[in-house]
Amino acid sequence: MSGAMWNEGYIAVDWGTTNRRAWRINGRSVSDEFEDGCGITAVADGGFPAAVAAIRARLGNLPLVMAGMIGSNRGWVEVPYLPCPAALADLAGALHEVPGEQAWIAPGLRFSDEHRADVMRGEETQVFGALAEGLVPPDSVVCHPGTHNKWVLVQDGRIQRFRTVMTGELFNLLRQGSILRAWLDGDVTPGSAFRDGVEQGLEGRALTAELFGVRAAVLLERLEPRDASDYVSGLLMGADVRTGLDEFGRREVVVMGRPELTRLYAAALDVAGASSREVDGDTAFLAGINAIAETRA
Amino acid sequence: MSGAMWNEGYIAVDWGTTNRRAWRINGRSVSDEFEDGCGITAVADGGFPAAVAAIRARLGNLPLVMAGMIGSNRGWVEVPYLPCPAALADLAGALHEVPGEQAWIAPGLRFSDEHRADVMRGEETQVFGALAEGLVPPDSVVCHPGTHNKWVLVQDGRIQRFRTVMTGELFNLLRQGSILRAWLDGDVTPGSAFRDGVEQGLEGRALTAELFGVRAAVLLERLEPRDASDYVSGLLMGADVRTGLDEFGRREVVVMGRPELTRLYAAALDVAGASSREVDGDTAFLAGINAIAETRA
Repeated sequence: MSGAMWNEGYIAVDWGTTNRRAWRINGRSVSDEFEDGCGITAVADGGFPAAVAAIRARLGNLPLVMAGMIGSNRGWVEVPYLPCPAALADLAGALHEVPGEQAWIAPGLRFSDEHRADVMRGEETQVFGALAEGLVPPDSVVCHPGTHNKWVLVQDGRIQRFRTVMTGELFNLLRQGSILRAWLDGDVTPGSAFRDGVEQGLEGRALTAELFGVRAAVLLERLEPRDASDYVSGLLMGADVRTGLDEFGRREVVVMGRPELTRLYAAALDVAGASSREVDGDTAFLAGINAIAETRA
Repeated sequence: MSGAMWNEGYIAVDWGTTNRRAWRINGRSVSDEFEDGCGITAVADGGFPAAVAAIRARLGNLPLVMAGMIGSNRGWVEVPYLPCPAALADLAGALHEVPGEQAWIAPGLRFSDEHRADVMRGEETQVFGALAEGLVPPDSVVCHPGTHNKWVLVQDGRIQRFRTVMTGELFNLLRQGSILRAWLDGDVTPGSAFRDGVEQGLEGRALTAELFGVRAAVLLERLEPRDASDYVSGLLMGADVRTGLDEFGRREVVVMGRPELTRLYAAALDVAGASSREVDGDTAFLAGINAIAETRA
């Protein structure tokens, strides 16, 4: 990296599966930004140089520091996962330079033990950013909802282990193509139907039966069709929260991500009798990318 | 119904959501049959008289006796659910005549108690048919896989209660649109990956986490991509079998339906330490429609 270019700032990119978000950073301030639907699955084979050029056309000819699915086997360049436990310095030290492109990609993390394996790309940057900003205590559990919710155990400022739950994707699949789809088009709000769903999900050993039960309950007029979206979302999040709380045995959770999701998980955690604090994911991401950039500039 | 027409036979139709199957019955013998993709969702508004005429054009101008989703709110005529417990005579007594059409539709069943509600359409006809033929004991548990698997408690020859699990539909959703889809295109066979999945599903309290775990296991080379389809199917069926065995507390199950599905559930039940016997669903359906027709002819 050229120090001269860093003095003019750089571009941070959170490049996911279906969306990407980019910010121009000067010093520690954001001077411009945009978000679009050009996630990695929207980029054709061989199309990443052009997709990257489009970012620079909007935000300037600056170095790029990226995290997320851009480093996956379907992204621009595959950057190997780092093993857990991992600290910010490990992530910064394994930053991958795309040759000749003035572009760097942060690796994701992997966890495995005798029972299971797990992977993440992008959330680790947010967790380390929130740690650097003091938004997440150095010993804590972070819940990071999205297409795939991540439960992350942070110990001594490192990501020790984590577990992924397919909640958001499953809700989208049910909403798009299932026998329940006609009732799942509304926005989800954390009212009484949502909380009923969470209670059932927390208790339940039979999620796939409870899902069909929603259809029966509507047909037999035990559930209002307009409440189905809240109830199903609550059911899935209840099962998710049970998994996360069981996994790490903690009752205090930092919920980090998009505010419209963190408020739902905060409500679900409340039903479960756990306390939570919400942290904005974009703030955390920028702090993480900045912290990585500072170790490299 | 006119006795003269019955003497010339009738047409039995198992009319589901995505498929229909029709048989011409003379006495108790099948003299012709066909199956096609003209399920109820393939019939446009107002299109049922034409869809019925097409059946008669192929099999003859005979009375029709039908069961399945044809009697649902998205079918030809909505026929109210009968409450459980219900016997064959209840079903036959509630057969709905479509006015002026020489066509009859069997009702479905509903179950509700303080905890939950459930509905079925079509499987009840198979269960009663199998009971009439002695293929199912009068006190037994029947597992009926399909898009929605039904666990049915039969007591004293009546359907006492039942529970539906959304296994088949969920597998199809994952196969069509999920992040796992590239690995789920193979046929499912009940080998070791399937049995591993069943064990995990039987044990698991975290199905939606285990589903993402399949992605991580493939990425980290703990699971062969070619085994993912068997493993995911096993995972979902394991959770399903746990629900069914827990629900009724029995370890002997009759598995009824399409042979390619019943053999998978038989294998999953074997992993769970339960015994099973397979019954062909078409045989049971024809026996059920015949038994209903005989009470009305």
